[in-house]
Formats: sequence, structure tokens, C-alpha cells
Amino acid sequence: MTVISKEKKGDSSAVSTPTVGEQPVALKIAYIGGGGRGWAPGLMKDLLLCPAMQGEIRLYDLDLSMAKFNAEYGNWLQGHPDNLSKWRYRAVDSLKSCLKNADFVFCSIEPGPIQYRKSDLEDPMKYGIYQPVGDSVGPGGCLRALRAIQDYRVIGEAIGAYAPNAWVLNFSNPMSVCTRTLYEVFPGIKAYGCCHEVFGTQGFLGRMYKRVMGCEKAPSREEMQVNVLGINHFTWIDKAQCRGVDMLALLREHLHDKGMIKVYTEKDAPRSLFGDSNQVKLDLFRRFGILAAAGDRHLAEFVPWYLTSEDSYVRWGFRMTPYSYRLERQREAPKQLKKEFKSRVFPKVHGSGEEYINQMLALLGKYPFRTNVNLPNRGQQQGLPAGAVVETNALFSENSLEPIASGALPDNVNILVQRHVANQETLVRAGLDKNRELGFQAFLNDPLVNISTDAAWKLYTTMLRKTGNPV
Amino acid sequence: MTVISKEKKGDSSAVSTPTVGEQPVALKIAYIGGGGRGWAPGLMKDLLLCPAMQGEIRLYDLDLSMAKFNAEYGNWLQGHPDNLSKWRYRAVDSLKSCLKNADFVFCSIEPGPIQYRKSDLEDPMKYGIYQPVGDSVGPGGCLRALRAIQDYRVIGEAIGAYAPNAWVLNFSNPMSVCTRTLYEVFPGIKAYGCCHEVFGTQGFLGRMYKRVMGCEKAPSREEMQVNVLGINHFTWIDKAQCRGVDMLALLREHLHDKGMIKVYTEKDAPRSLFGDSNQVKLDLFRRFGILAAAGDRHLAEFVPWYLTSEDSYVRWGFRMTPYSYRLERQREAPKQLKKEFKSRVFPKVHGSGEEYINQMLALLGKYPFRTNVNLPNRGQQQGLPAGAVVETNALFSENSLEPIASGALPDNVNILVQRHVANQETLVRAGLDKNRELGFQAFLNDPLVNISTDAAWKLYTTMLRKTGNPV
Amino acid sequence: MTVISKEKKGDSSAVSTPTVGEQPVALKIAYIGGGGRGWAPGLMKDLLLCPAMQGEIRLYDLDLSMAKFNAEYGNWLQGHPDNLSKWRYRAVDSLKSCLKNADFVFCSIEPGPIQYRKSDLEDPMKYGIYQPVGDSVGPGGCLRALRAIQDYRVIGEAIGAYAPNAWVLNFSNPMSVCTRTLYEVFPGIKAYGCCHEVFGTQGFLGRMYKRVMGCEKAPSREEMQVNVLGINHFTWIDKAQCRGVDMLALLREHLHDKGMIKVYTEKDAPRSLFGDSNQVKLDLFRRFGILAAAGDRHLAEFVPWYLTSEDSYVRWGFRMTPYSYRLERQREAPKQLKKEFKSRVFPKVHGSGEEYINQMLALLGKYPFRTNVNLPNRGQQQGLPAGAVVETNALFSENSLEPIASGALPDNVNILVQRHVANQETLVRAGLDKNRELGFQAFLNDPLVNISTDAAWKLYTTMLRKTGNPV
Amino acid sequence: MTVISKEKKGDSSAVSTPTVGEQPVALKIAYIGGGGRGWAPGLMKDLLLCPAMQGEIRLYDLDLSMAKFNAEYGNWLQGHPDNLSKWRYRAVDSLKSCLKNADFVFCSIEPGPIQYRKSDLEDPMKYGIYQPVGDSVGPGGCLRALRAIQDYRVIGEAIGAYAPNAWVLNFSNPMSVCTRTLYEVFPGIKAYGCCHEVFGTQGFLGRMYKRVMGCEKAPSREEMQVNVLGINHFTWIDKAQCRGVDMLALLREHLHDKGMIKVYTEKDAPRSLFGDSNQVKLDLFRRFGILAAAGDRHLAEFVPWYLTSEDSYVRWGFRMTPYSYRLERQREAPKQLKKEFKSRVFPKVHGSGEEYINQMLALLGKYPFRTNVNLPNRGQQQGLPAGAVVETNALFSENSLEPIASGALPDNVNILVQRHVANQETLVRAGLDKNRELGFQAFLNDPLVNISTDAAWKLYTTMLRKTGNPV
Repeated sequence: MTVISKEKKGDSSAVSTPTVGEQPVALKIAYIGGGGRGWAPGLMKDLLLCPAMQGEIRLYDLDLSMAKFNAEYGNWLQGHPDNLSKWRYRAVDSLKSCLKNADFVFCSIEPGPIQYRKSDLEDPMKYGIYQPVGDSVGPGGCLRALRAIQDYRVIGEAIGAYAPNAWVLNFSNPMSVCTRTLYEVFPGIKAYGCCHEVFGTQGFLGRMYKRVMGCEKAPSREEMQVNVLGINHFTWIDKAQCRGVDMLALLREHLHDKGMIKVYTEKDAPRSLFGDSNQVKLDLFRRFGILAAAGDRHLAEFVPWYLTSEDSYVRWGFRMTPYSYRLERQREAPKQLKKEFKSRVFPKVHGSGEEYINQMLALLGKYPFRTNVNLPNRGQQQGLPAGAVVETNALFSENSLEPIASGALPDNVNILVQRHVANQETLVRAGLDKNRELGFQAFLNDPLVNISTDAAWKLYTTMLRKTGNPV
Repeated sequence: MTVISKEKKGDSSAVSTPTVGEQPVALKIAYIGGGGRGWAPGLMKDLLLCPAMQGEIRLYDLDLSMAKFNAEYGNWLQGHPDNLSKWRYRAVDSLKSCLKNADFVFCSIEPGPIQYRKSDLEDPMKYGIYQPVGDSVGPGGCLRALRAIQDYRVIGEAIGAYAPNAWVLNFSNPMSVCTRTLYEVFPGIKAYGCCHEVFGTQGFLGRMYKRVMGCEKAPSREEMQVNVLGINHFTWIDKAQCRGVDMLALLREHLHDKGMIKVYTEKDAPRSLFGDSNQVKLDLFRRFGILAAAGDRHLAEFVPWYLTSEDSYVRWGFRMTPYSYRLERQREAPKQLKKEFKSRVFPKVHGSGEEYINQMLALLGKYPFRTNVNLPNRGQQQGLPAGAVVETNALFSENSLEPIASGALPDNVNILVQRHVANQETLVRAGLDKNRELGFQAFLNDPLVNISTDAAWKLYTTMLRKTGNPV
Repeated sequence: MTVISKEKKGDSSAVSTPTVGEQPVALKIAYIGGGGRGWAPGLMKDLLLCPAMQGEIRLYDLDLSMAKFNAEYGNWLQGHPDNLSKWRYRAVDSLKSCLKNADFVFCSIEPGPIQYRKSDLEDPMKYGIYQPVGDSVGPGGCLRALRAIQDYRVIGEAIGAYAPNAWVLNFSNPMSVCTRTLYEVFPGIKAYGCCHEVFGTQGFLGRMYKRVMGCEKAPSREEMQVNVLGINHFTWIDKAQCRGVDMLALLREHLHDKGMIKVYTEKDAPRSLFGDSNQVKLDLFRRFGILAAAGDRHLAEFVPWYLTSEDSYVRWGFRMTPYSYRLERQREAPKQLKKEFKSRVFPKVHGSGEEYINQMLALLGKYPFRTNVNLPNRGQQQGLPAGAVVETNALFSENSLEPIASGALPDNVNILVQRHVANQETLVRAGLDKNRELGFQAFLNDPLVNISTDAAWKLYTTMLRKTGNPV
Repeated sequence: MTVISKEKKGDSSAVSTPTVGEQPVALKIAYIGGGGRGWAPGLMKDLLLCPAMQGEIRLYDLDLSMAKFNAEYGNWLQGHPDNLSKWRYRAVDSLKSCLKNADFVFCSIEPGPIQYRKSDLEDPMKYGIYQPVGDSVGPGGCLRALRAIQDYRVIGEAIGAYAPNAWVLNFSNPMSVCTRTLYEVFPGIKAYGCCHEVFGTQGFLGRMYKRVMGCEKAPSREEMQVNVLGINHFTWIDKAQCRGVDMLALLREHLHDKGMIKVYTEKDAPRSLFGDSNQVKLDLFRRFGILAAAGDRHLAEFVPWYLTSEDSYVRWGFRMTPYSYRLERQREAPKQLKKEFKSRVFPKVHGSGEEYINQMLALLGKYPFRTNVNLPNRGQQQGLPAGAVVETNALFSENSLEPIASGALPDNVNILVQRHVANQETLVRAGLDKNRELGFQAFLNDPLVNISTDAAWKLYTTMLRKTGNPV
């Protein structure tokens, strides 16, 4: 069968060009959090390039001054010469004002002051537990979860009260726990979690394809059909096809090509904090036969085999993100933005590569759009409990988001995932009930916690105390 | 939120206009059966209007002369002034020649001579069992299933041998049993069952919308988002939205409007054999709270309440299709075609309303396309066993067909469906193993078989004998 | 392996002889209902023969005068020359007085006045629905269930309040629905349902064994190991061994012996209202391969094949119990008792054949005792939902009643049972919520209701009205 | 309710006294393995005290000379003055001769030469993995499993061929894997695994009861009703009652009494290799709320928290069993026996405390007997997959062994158990298929394997090589 070309397919991640003559849709968007980070400006730029929507965006942040500045910045950006749309930004001082009758809600929060991250990342080290990211699982992810649940309870209840029909996009980590909390406190919510980690793995597959097949340009993500399973940051692909080729068979065949599986040393490991040599991914593929599909920094935290000593990350070709970096970024990001704003020189705008614009347009009825998202399990993922938040493909269409049935993980991978699913359910319960002992069951069950229960209890309660957690 | 217009959406059932400059895809299509019926000419006309595909179509029928005539007819049709494509039709005398390296396989067969339908339809009447269609369930459907399984075993094995990568579209009834048999004999098959019965229910909802909302034109099927559950011909819709309106809530509100629920009599019941007054649909909706989504003639056969006496169909506003009609149609359809062919006057061509062209284009990678199809359950339908063939929405995309997770039916509807699912599994097993006693368990379990087991065994074995069944 | 003799085994149904020197246990027993029936005197006699227990029995009945008479009768019986125990009977006028700190609770009630049975049994006949018993399923069983649920809600709540630690033995029908209601309103209850229907089937097997093996005496029930599955009155046996012989294999071999499977006529059908020719049992065994284990009068009501016309029961060798008999018995039973009491001549006492004495002694720690009972499903019955009341073997031991894992029914039998389980769950929900429409879903789903939904609604609401049901 | 005394209950572990006048049952017992260990003599003594059985015992061991000696020893023991029975011992040189028409089969083997245990126990230490026992899980248990599966395949197939109706008692570790293999190779087998680890926990509870209640004598195991869940050596109790007292509530209340939870040091930890301070048990109870019921040495291997450093076992109050001890015992046990035999002085005989005599008598129909055993899951353990070998209570009765439905473990304990169940299923598959990569998935998934996958692969393949494993 001759393969046909793919241009202008609906599932392109490129921002769609509006059909001439169509009126833009008028929307109310609530933006919760994101004050001190890059998310809000990224959204502003993406919206600016999309003429199909317009309206009002309300910015709510615990730091009202940041929200105010962001509003000012956003309104200024409306004057950008590339602007194709019409939005009004407004800082608000309550969840209610932010949410009232919103069509879409964006959540992107830091649970607690950034200083709590110090304990998340550094206290576990004292017990020999190393976390490259520490925001999804591991002791840091666990404590962050118990904080975030408190915030998401408030947010979920407010959405139930003021914007029950809105589509809610969650961007905060721990993704599964935050999204699960929203459904727990307001079961009627239309929320989902967005994460781009799978994209990176598709990029890796594309580059392998290019090298092996000798084509000029790596196939784009849109050309690849992948079946996604598992949970956020511990996501798996058991089928991938591209231009008629079985990509996993190809990978299997070329797994031992030069430069693929490799033992990294301090000398050749990437310098960047976010560099990814795909070694964890490939090792999991080699051991379990299906492909893990998230950044190695994340994957390494979900199993006990890659962070066994202070510098084991080097062997796998990635780096730890230290607390100092988190603190610095938190401080610098707004400074940069303010500087830009003061300069009155418009920044260059281009798509962020995130998919929310496509998702929104699909929900508005423009076209069907398939991608991977985080949703409560209603059968899309066999072998994991109903209700748990899982990551699979889903179909966005007019006012509708339907998970696609993805089958099941192989038993020996499923057991690795089940463990985290059990923990997420436990953390949500423990956080909402403020049940310290129950939370500790999840803490103990984390694959990185291979210390004595005495030590674990000490670490757990110390971290709870240092991060002001009510649990 | 302002609702936007829907023109040019990917999920339109209209045959797509090719993008200028794209090359048509070259395909090999195997057509099994359909010799004596309208299906083949319908496909020919649909293909003729679609410039995106071209190639060869091999026609295989037990009646080789019919296949030959159809090939001649199809090749003649290529001269039609409206023709946008380029196909070559060829009659073949073996499944192997038909299937060898096919890209798509169409199956549309009559299991056994049409004369067997006489027993399917008329023998049960002697025991007070009335079947408006008798091709899915009921004694007639059961016997037809036991015949069809023999044919589908042969077809499935041939596909496994000669066209293992083809996409297989099944159109024969009993849909669930035929599709299930294909997967049983060749588990790697890429088969699905196509049926348009849900469309009719969408049409009914659209007309109600028009009447109630007072708009000029009923919304098209493409404007309606429905969640489909259940099995073929006993399909259910638990969510339907259109232009922002909850259609089932609307129906509930207007259920007792004049002309909706009504007791039909011989005088006002439709005369047409295929007329549908939607009374069974509405009664099921009224009793169970969710909407049955197939023609009333079919629905009535899946439960014991609508065919309780010789003329009960009248009260529900539909008719029985007698054997004489089946026989007549079988004889007349080819005569018409031959007459047309001899006349050398090209018929008018217009889309058949079937969706296979959209499905094929989606599988070729043109666009994502969602519709309801029949597939083995891999989680898309909670509450029914894995592997059973169920009808839910699914997403067609490049070389990919993925079921959409549809949730579960309410318990009291699920129990009605489970019964038929158990029967389908039993029939497939009984048919493949030629196990007469096992087949009888399914026969007895049919909701129309409310006669003594003595009588049922006599009816069953008589029908087996009269229809030459090896079971 | 030489088979050893069985005398004096713990699982004997004979009332146990107390070990010399053991003190009797002092108990408080609450007896709810049973005023007008034979149950209470039966218990009195069984207790009288068992020296291992003594204490107080409080009798509660809506008809206080009957309770008073029963107390008087019971206390009189204490003077019986065969009496081995010491009990004090007391009539009470409230559930509270009856239950306060009870060790055991017996429930055996008639839901509503006996006159309601007229509608249960006779109204369905007007629609061609015939019920030999009409107290478990069928329209009569359904309506009786909706009444009983109201009573059992009150009883369950009172047990929760006044006797939360008591063991509760339910004897009322519909067994599954009554027991399920108790667990629904007081989940901590220690209740189970007792029924002797399986015993009859064991007797039938024993007699077949005697005939076929030519032994002098049929083996007793205690010598037979049976695996019990299903639900009350629609119970199944998939394994039965006796003296090393596979009894179901034996039955299969001799199924067509003279006198086994047979078509009964008015002439040779038993005259007794409770006669059982085992034809339904054998027909189900023949069709489905496993043995139904309840009286034919009950079994016939759970499927649609044996009650297809006004006199079809004759062909299967059993009789209908008419309303007139129910009414008569209700009136006569107390009269007999009063007559006996007045005569001052002690009746002969012998064990009733019921097993409650063994069960009580086992719960008091005397010995382990296995028998079949009705309990919520916690895994003992695969293929049926958790929580539904099922009938399987269970082990009684000190203050403990544990279901024995019984595996699963064959699929085609399971589907027959699932239907009734769904109905029981629906009836309990409908009864507790007083949801008339929901109750109708169960009514429609009953296998005997093969009439139009119009007719069914009329019958249902008529019966509700005539039996004063608040649903 | 007055509590009654328990003497002479059927579920006593004391060997039952035969009823006067009953004939002993004549049996053929096959004994596989046990040549070099204490098991066979233990059985000989237990049998000698039980007059209810007699017959022939065939001894089969890879070391035929040991079997011969054991036969000689057993026949000599028949002259013991306390002997109440009549057995003939015979050494056989093939599985066939051993099994032919056996009524009971005992399996108690050492998979491979004892020298393989050196690698099981000592190689993992080089990677910081410490195993007190190393025969159930951990790298040692995993490798031992892969060896034992090879033996059990042969044994299972031979039982299928020569003794398909025998009751098979397995005593070898890893218990779950060995028993599972038997069912995998001969699904019709009547096998179960026997283990006394739960008894120790009952003893611990009894002593606590005595201390807290101030009674003179601790209640015996027979007086305690426990509900058993989980798998062998990682078994749990969620309910325990004794003399009307909730033992787990009592334990909870007294958990922090002096001497209960305690940090042991080298000074006060027991010296005995088999000493058990119950600290792991109590810590698991404290953290998860239900009681682990096996020796601490076993429990510690199933989770990653108690063996975190070379000497962490000291803190928990137990010891490691070194390879040297295993070797020594293997060499000394037969020597002792031979010495005894030569001395011609009969040893003292008393019951071993094992329960097989009770189990056998129950299977012969003497009385019902409940205890905990290892059986494939058919619903007795919710939350674990069907077919996996689990440990719950079961009821032995005439030629019948039925698991008792035990409910489910709490989610956070279940996840700990699921992991091992997945491993057992994987090991059996890997062992039977000789699939080295699949076996490694189980190895990696073991909770003690918290080393890098590179190191783990090296350790795994080294151990496979050193223990001559064909996988």
C-alpha cells in the first residue's frame, strides 16, 4: 500500500490556521497559579498566535503582585505585531472571581513556598536517597503530594462551586495525585492532566529512525502512532508505528548499535541539568521488552535500580537538579520578564510546543484530536484499578474527552506501576483525611525508600515538619 | 461559550474531497460474497466518487457467475461521467486469489442458500415465536449463526494465510458472532464489524431536536456526540450532546409530547417492511432510562416483551419481514442490475451513506475518524467479558483502529446484554466444535425462547436439519 | 484406599449428645415472627432435646396474642418427660425487649397479612404467569420482596441497636432479599439465611445410589460431600461424592434409566401439593450438565421453560400451591396447637431435621460444622458480584461463620443466576428507596415476565396497590 | 454468653485417639526426598502413634542409600514399645515405583546438592544483599525456585502418570513456587503446601494473652480463631479471637507495653539461629495495622526495610542462618540417625507438632479439620490473581480440601504481596520455559534487589552458573 503524505492532518501539533470567515470563539479562561514561572507567558504567546479564540483571562496567584504584573505583561503583549487574537488579562484576588463561569481553567501551582523544596530534595540525601527531580515520587514527591493535596482540595471545591462546566487543565506535579484530588473532591469535574514527557521519547524514536533508515529528516511526532500506557512520568509505549514501520521492532534490532546502550562517565555525561541520554529508557526496554516513555530523570525515580549511590546518575547519563537551581529559577524567571517588559521591546513569539491550544480547539469542536493525557481510569488501562489517574491516549472532540482503550501492560511492568498507583490512592486519602500513619504507608512503599522503618519514620516526620504539612 | 460552526470537520460522513496535488493511493481490495445483493454495486459507486484511492478489486462469490457479472458491471461503471477514480474489477474463483496481499477485505455473505431463511423465520412461528428479522438473535439468528460460523472459520483462516495484514470489514449478520469467529480462528486479524443502525437513532434524535427547538433543519449526525455501548443491534446511548444541548435530557422532558409515545394499531402502523416508529426505543428509554440505539425491528428481538403474540409488532409500529420478501429480493436484485447493465444507461451515483470510505481514508492516514464499530472488548466496555465483540465508538487513524473507553451500562441494562454476549460466546464455541448440546444452551437462553425445553429441543434440531447444519 | 465408617462425625445433622460433665451454655434467644406458623413449636421441640444449651427465649410477633400463646405453650412443653434442657419462654411487645443483648436471633416472618398472598399468586395468572410457590421470584416473589424489605429494614436497624453481636438466623423468603436487606441496613450484622432445599436433592441422589448400587439403605446426607453454588432456591451442585463414588457421573450414566426422565401426566403426577418428581432437576442437569439442587416447584420459577401454560406443571410432575391452601394453613396451624395445648397431652418430640441446633452448637465452639447457607459473597462464589447473597457451603466454628470457596458456575448457568442476582440487588435498592420505577426494572427482568411492558406495568402497579406497598 | 470448654474438639492438633472397634485404613504412602533430613523420621514417629492408619511407605531419594537406610530405620522403629500401628517401609529406585497407586504423596526435597546453597546465600552478600534464610524469596530464593521448578516438573508429571488420585503434601521451599509448578504441569493434581509458620505467631499471641490477662496457662493454638491471608512465609492475620477476646485489639492496646516493641542490640538479641523476637512482626503490625504471621527471619526477606545493612538483623532481634550451618546439618542429621539405629535403643516418640496426621485423617473422613494451607487461588483470597498459590484457611474433609473465603488484605499490604505473587508466576513460567531473561524480571522485582540492573544481571547469571541451572 502506497503511503500517503500527512500534511495538514488534524492531529498536527502545529497551531491551526483558522478557516477564513469563521468567527473567533469568545472565552473566559481562569489561570490559577503560575505567577512566578514561565507557564503564563508561554500561554500568552501561544494564544496570541491563534485567531480562533478570544476573550478574557483572569490571573489568580497567592502572590497577587505577580498576578498583577502578569496581567500587565499580557495586555502589553496584545500590541505585538504578530498578534492574531484579542485577549484581555485581569488579575483577580480570589478563586471565586477567577473561576466564575470560566470555560477553561489552567492550574499550574507550586505547593507551598519554593523553600520547601529544600527539604524535599536534601533531607532524603542524608539517608542515601537520591532524587533527580523529586516532584512525582520518592520522599520528595510524596511530601510534595501531601502539600499539593491541600491546595487541590481548595481548588477542586471552588471549581465545583463556580465553574462546574469548565474544562480544567492541570499542569502541576505530582500530576496523578493533583488530578486525582480534583476528581475526589468534585466528581463531576471535567479535568485532565497535561504532560509532554512522551513527546521526548517520540523524538528519540524519530532520531533513531532517521539514523537507521538513512532519511534526511527525522519523522515528526505527528507521524508516529504510539499506544500509551501507565501513569504520568512512568509511562510506557507498547506499540509505535511510523511510515509503516514497527518502531519497537526496529529499536530491538538496533539496540546494541554503537552509541545506543552505553555506560556513561563523568566525562561524557551531558552537562545540562536536563540532558537525557536515554539510558534508563533503553535499559528498561532491554529488561522488560517495552519502552518507557518519559525523561530518564523521571523514570529513574520510579524503580530502585538507577539511583543506588550518590553519583549513579552519571552512569545513566543524566544529572540531578539541585535545590539551588530551583530556588534560582524561581527568583530569576520573573526578573527576566520584568526586564523584558520594561524594555518595551516585544519578544519573538513562536509556539511553545505544548498542546493545549489544539486540545482547546478540539474541545470547541474544530476537529478531533488525539494525544496522551492523564485521566481517571474507566477501562482505558486494564490491570489498574478504576478511578486511579492513568496516562493513555484520549480523543478530544466537541465538549468531549474520551480515553482510548489501551489494553494492559505486561504483568512484570504492571506490578511496577501498580505500586505507584496504590501510593497515589493512599496519598490522596491520607492528605484529605490528614492521616499521618496512612501517609507513611505510601512513603514506605516508595521504591526509593529502602531504609529501615525507624529511619523512614524519622525522615518522613522531619520532612512533614519542615514543610509545614498539616498531615 | 459561543458555539462554532462545524463545516469541514474530519468526522463528516460526506465523502472527502481530495486535496489538490495528492496522489491517489494504490490498493488491492478483496470482496468476499455480496454476489447477489446490493452491497457490491453500492461500494462501486462510493469508490467512483472518491479520487483518493485506486487499484484492483477482486470479487469472490460462491456463485462465480454472479462475481463475473459484477466485475463486468464494475468495469463498465468506470466509464461513468462522474467517475473520479480508477479501479479494475476482477472475478476470482478462490479465496486465495481474492485475498493474496489484499490491503482491505470486505465480507458480506449469505450463510447458506437463501432457502434456509424459510426455516429460520417460519419454523419458530409454529411455536409462537415471532421474529421481525431473525438474523441476529432469536431461533433464526441462532441457527444462522451456527451456519455462518462454518463459513467464517474458512474465511478467517484464509485471511490468516493470504492477507494477514489486511484490514477486514465485516458486514454480515449475525455481526457479533461473525466478527468473533474471525478473531477466534486468526487472533492476529485486523477485523471490525460495520453497522449503520446507530445512525437511525441519531436521525430520530435530530428530528426531535428540530421539532422541539423549532430550528429549520435537523442537526446532522455529525453534529451529535454520542457515547455508544452494548452490542450490535442491541446498542445503547447513555450520552448525546448536540449544539451544547443534552439530548437525552431533552428527550426525557419531551417523552410524553403528543406523537412520541403512542399505541399503534393496524391502521396507523407504517406499511413499509422497514418502517420504524421508534416505539420500542422509547419504551426501553422510559423503562430503563437510557436510549436503545438500533432499529425497533432489531431491538424487539433482544428482549421478551415486544413480540408476545402474532401481531404484537403492530402495537409497536413496525412490521415483520417475511421469508417471501427475502426470497424475492434475492431474486430481483441481480435482475435489476443486469437490466441496467444491458440498457447501457449509467445510473445516478451518490454516496450510499455508509462510512467505509471514511474509515478506509482514515486507516490510510488521511485524518482521524471516530465512529461506532464492532470490536473485541479490550476494556472499552466495562461489565462485559474481555474478548467478546461489543459495539462502541472507536478511533480510526493511520493503520490503527482503537476502541474508545465507553464506561459501563447501568446494571439492569447490562444484564440484558450479558445474556446475549454469553450466547455469542457459546455459539462460536459450539459452532467451531460442532457441539450440538452446547449450541442448545444458547438456543434456550435466548429471550424469545419461552417454550418448554422439550419443544425447544424439537424446534432446534428440526431447524438444524432443515438448514443442513453440521453442528 | 479402604473407606472408613462415618458414625459420630461432627457434621452429622443429628442433634448431638452432650459430653457428660459439660455445663449447658446459658443463652438469650430472640424469636421474631413465627406467631402463626409451625416454626416456633418446631424450635421448641428441637431445643428440648438438646441439653447443651439453656436460658431465655423472647417471642415477638405483630400479633401479640399469638406470641403470648406460644410462650405459654413453650413453658408448658418444659414439663415434657423427654425434656433435657431448661428454657423460659416470654412474649414481648417490642423489638427492643425481644432483642436486648440477645445471643441468637431467629427471624421467620410473613411480610404483611396472609391475604396479600392472594394477589401475589392470582393476579399474575390473569396474564398467563403461573407460579407454584411465588415467594422467591416471579411477580409474586418480587412483590413479596418489596414488602419484606420494609419489615427487614426495621428488624435490621433494631438488631444494630440492641443486639449487634448476636448471630441472626433468617428463615423468611425471599431468602436472598431478606438477608441482603439486613446487611444493607446494618453492615456489621452476623446474619445468615437457612434453607433445607439442598437436603432434598441429596436425598434424591442417595436414593439413586441405593437403587443403582443395590445397597440396602440409601446413604445419608451426611455421607455425601457436595459443592454448592448459586443462590437460594436456584442452587446448584457441581461435585458430589459419596463412599468414593462420583455421584454426578453416576447420575449421568443412569439418567435414561427407566423411571428417571419421564413425561408426567395428570394421572401419574403426585397428588401432594409438595410432591417432587425431580423432573425439572433432571432436565436442567441434562441440558446444562450440572445438577440443580432445590425443589422442582422452586426451580421451575427461576427459568422460563417449565411454566409455559396453565397446566404445564403436570408434565414435570409437581403441583401448584394455591392461595386457598396458604390461607387455610395460616388459620389451621394455631388452632391445632391450641387444641393440643388444651388437651394437656404432650406431643411426641423428635428432631425437626433442620440444622440450626448444630449451627448454634458450632457457633458456641462445640465442633466445626459445615453446611450450605446464604451469605453475602466475599469471594466464595466467583462470577457473581461481591456483596450479593449467595448460597454455598460454609464452616461454622466458635463465634465464626466462614464461607467456603466454591469456584464458579459454568458460564451458561451463571448467566441464568446473574439475572436473579441483579434483580435482588435492584429490589433491595428499590424497596429501601421506595423507587417504583426501579422496582419495575426487576419485575420486567424476571424470567416469568414474558408479557408486554404495558401489561407488565399494569400487573405490577395493581399488585403494589393490592398489597399496600409503599414503593 | 457463657464460654464453653474446648476439649475433644475435632480441630485439635493432638493426634486423635481412634474410636474403639474401628478398623485402621490401609494406605500406600509415597515419600519423595527427605533422605538426608529430619522429615522422614518425624513422620515415622507421628505415624507410629496413630492406630487409625497402616500400610506401606515407599521411600524415594536421589541418594538411594539414604532411602535404604531410612527404610531400615523405619522398619526397626515398628518394634518400638509405644507403636500403635503397622507400617512397612520400602526404598524404591524410581518415581514410578514410589508413586504407583499411592494414596498420599509427601514431597520434601532439596533442589540440587546442598553446596548450591553457598551461592544462594553468599553471592548476594557481595552486593550488599543479606538473607537470613534465602529459600523463599530474595536472590537465593529466586535461584532456588528456578532449580526446584525443574525437579517439580518431573515430580508433577510422574504424579499425573502414576498417582493421579493421590493427595500430595508439599513441604519443600519455595513453597508457593513448588506447589504452583505441580498444578501447572498436572492441573488435575490434589496437592497442597504445608507450613507451620503461622503456628508460631499464634503462640506469640497466646503468650501475650497470658501475660496481659494474667491467666495461668497461655491458650493453645486450637483455642484461637484466626483468619489467614497472603502467601507462604508472608502470611497475615486480620482477625484473631480467643475466648471471646479480639486478640488484635488486645495487641494494639498493649503494643507499647514494656518488652513488646524494642530495639535489640548484639547483647540482648537471641543467640539461637532460629530465635525470634517478633520485632519485624510487631513493626509491620504497627505500620500497617494487621499482623504478619510467620517467623521474623522469613518476613524480613519480603520487604526492603529490615535487612538494610550487614548486621541490621540484630536490631530486629534475629540471626542469619549461614551456609556453614546448612552444610553441617545436612551432614550431621543422617549421622545422628545412624548412630541411634546402631545403638538399638529406641528414641522417645512424641508428636512432631506438624498437622499432617490430622489432615490425612480428615481426608480419610474421620472428622472435618480446619487449618491454613497453600492452595491455588479460586476466590479464597480476593485481590490476588486466580491460580496463584496463596495461604489461607481451608477445610479438610472426606477426600476433599476446600479453601475458606478469607476476604482481602488492606490495599497497602496487598501491594506488598502482589509483588511476590507476580514473581512466583514469572519464575514458574521462566523455569518451565527455561527463559533466562524472563527469570531476570522476577529477580529484579524482588524487594531485596536494590542494586543497579548491571550488577543485578551479573549476580543473577553468576548464581545461575554456579548452581548449574539450565535456565
